Amino acid sequence: MSSSSAVPAAKPPIRDALVAAAFRLFLERGYEQTTVDDIVGLAGVGRRSFFRYFPSKEDVVFPDHERCLADMTAFLAASGAEHEPVRRVCDAARLVLRMYAENPTFSVQRYRLTRQVPGLRAYELSVVWRYERALAEYLRERYAGRPDGTLRADVIAAAVVAAHNNALRSWLRSDGEDDAGAAVDHALRYVQVTYGRPADTPAAPGRTGPAPASGQPEGPEDVVILVSRRDAPLWRLVQELETALGRT
Amino acid sequence: MSSSSAVPAAKPPIRDALVAAAFRLFLERGYEQTTVDDIVGLAGVGRRSFFRYFPSKEDVVFPDHERCLADMTAFLAASGAEHEPVRRVCDAARLVLRMYAENPTFSVQRYRLTRQVPGLRAYELSVVWRYERALAEYLRERYAGRPDGTLRADVIAAAVVAAHNNALRSWLRSDGEDDAGAAVDHALRYVQVTYGRPADTPAAPGRTGPAPASGQPEGPEDVVILVSRRDAPLWRLVQELETALGRT
Repeated sequence: MSSSSAVPAAKPPIRDALVAAAFRLFLERGYEQTTVDDIVGLAGVGRRSFFRYFPSKEDVVFPDHERCLADMTAFLAASGAEHEPVRRVCDAARLVLRMYAENPTFSVQRYRLTRQVPGLRAYELSVVWRYERALAEYLRERYAGRPDGTLRADVIAAAVVAAHNNALRSWLRSDGEDDAGAAVDHALRYVQVTYGRPADTPAAPGRTGPAPASGQPEGPEDVVILVSRRDAPLWRLVQELETALGRT
Repeated sequence: MSSSSAVPAAKPPIRDALVAAAFRLFLERGYEQTTVDDIVGLAGVGRRSFFRYFPSKEDVVFPDHERCLADMTAFLAASGAEHEPVRRVCDAARLVLRMYAENPTFSVQRYRLTRQVPGLRAYELSVVWRYERALAEYLRERYAGRPDGTLRADVIAAAVVAAHNNALRSWLRSDGEDDAGAAVDHALRYVQVTYGRPADTPAAPGRTGPAPASGQPEGPEDVVILVSRRDAPLWRLVQELETALGRT
C-alpha cells in the first residue's frame, strides 16, 4: 500500500477527539438532534477547530474516506504493466476493507447510523461513487485502445465495488464478528474469475494467497476458458484448446 | 412494459408547465440562482401546486424517474420462471433508456446541468442506486438458494447499471445525436455474454432482436463456453465440448 504525501502521517488528537465526541452524541441522542456546537462542546474545542478538520457534520461520520481515497489513488498510480488490471483493482478495493476492519466497533456503529439517516446514505453513495470512478479511471487507462475499453473498465469497476460491498455489508450485519478478509477475498475472487486473465486468477476455492504474477508459468490449477460459437468446427476448438493449454 | 396503477395515465398540464418553467430558468440563470418562487411565478401557479408535484427543487430536475422506477418494479414483478434472469434485468434497464430517449433535448440539457451542480449529482446517484437495488432484489429472488446467490445478484445488477450508464453517457455527450438504442444494446450484450445463459445470449454483433427463449433449440450463432482447469486431460475437454455442441 502506498502512502500519499498529502496525507499526514499521524492523526492529530483533536481530530480523533472530535470524531469520538460526535459518535457518542450521535448514538445517545441521534444524528439529526446533534449540532456541531454540541460536538465541539463535548470535545472541549472551538467551532473553528471542527471546520478545520471537517467541512460539514456529515464528514465527521466518514473521517477516513478521504485518506483511503488518496491511498487508493496512490496505489493505482504506482501500478506497472506487470500488474494484471483486474487483480490490481481488486487489491485496491481491499484498502477500503482494511479501513473498515481496522476499527470494527466504529464501523458497525456507523453502518447502523447510515441506515437510519437518509442524508448520510446519500453521502455514502457519493463516496462509493468516487471509489468506483478511481477504479474505472485506472482500468480505462489500462484498456485504452482496446475495443470497448471504457465499457469493460466501467463494468469491471462496478462489479468490483458491488462484490466488495456485498461482503462488507454481510460483515457489518454480523456486527463485525465474521472474518471480513475471507468474505471479501471470496467475493472478489468471483469477479476475478469472471474478468481476470486465467494466469492471474486464484482458481482453487480457499486459496487466498497471491496469484502468480503475469508472465510466470501457469500452474495446473489455473482456469482455462474457451468461448466459441456453436457452429465452429470441433477441430478448430481443439486447436484453440491445445494452444491455450500450451500442448502444441 | 407494464404500467402501474399508481402512476397516472396522462401527465397533468400543470406538472409539465412547472418542469418547462424550471428548465428555462435553470438554463437562463443557473440552478442555484433559481428559486421555487421564480418557477411558480413563470408557470403562473401557486407555491402549493409546485410542492403537490415535487417534494423539492431537485425533484423537478428528474420529473420522470419515479414513474420509471415504478414501471421497472412492475416489469420485474410481472416476470415468470420462463424469463432468463440476466436478460430480464437488461430489458428492465432498457426502460430507463427509453425514458431518456423519449426527449433527447431535455435529457441532454439535464445532463449538462447535473454535471455542474454537485447537489444534483448526489440526487442522481441516489436514483441510480434505487434502480440498481430494484434489479438486485429481483435477481436475489431468482438466485435464492443458489451458492453465492446474493453476491451474484448484486454484481450482475451493478454490471447492468454500469453498462447501461456507459452507453447512456456516450449518447448524452453526443448531444443525443447517436443511436441510443444501439449503444445500449451493445453495452448490455457485453453483460449478457458474461453472465447470461448461452441460449439466451444474442451472440452475433449487430443482432438486436430477441434471443431464443429458454428451452428452444439453440441456433448456430449461440455461444458455447467451456471452463476447465489447466491440468484437465484434453480428451475430457473434447468430450465436454462434444456434449455441449450436441454432437455426441
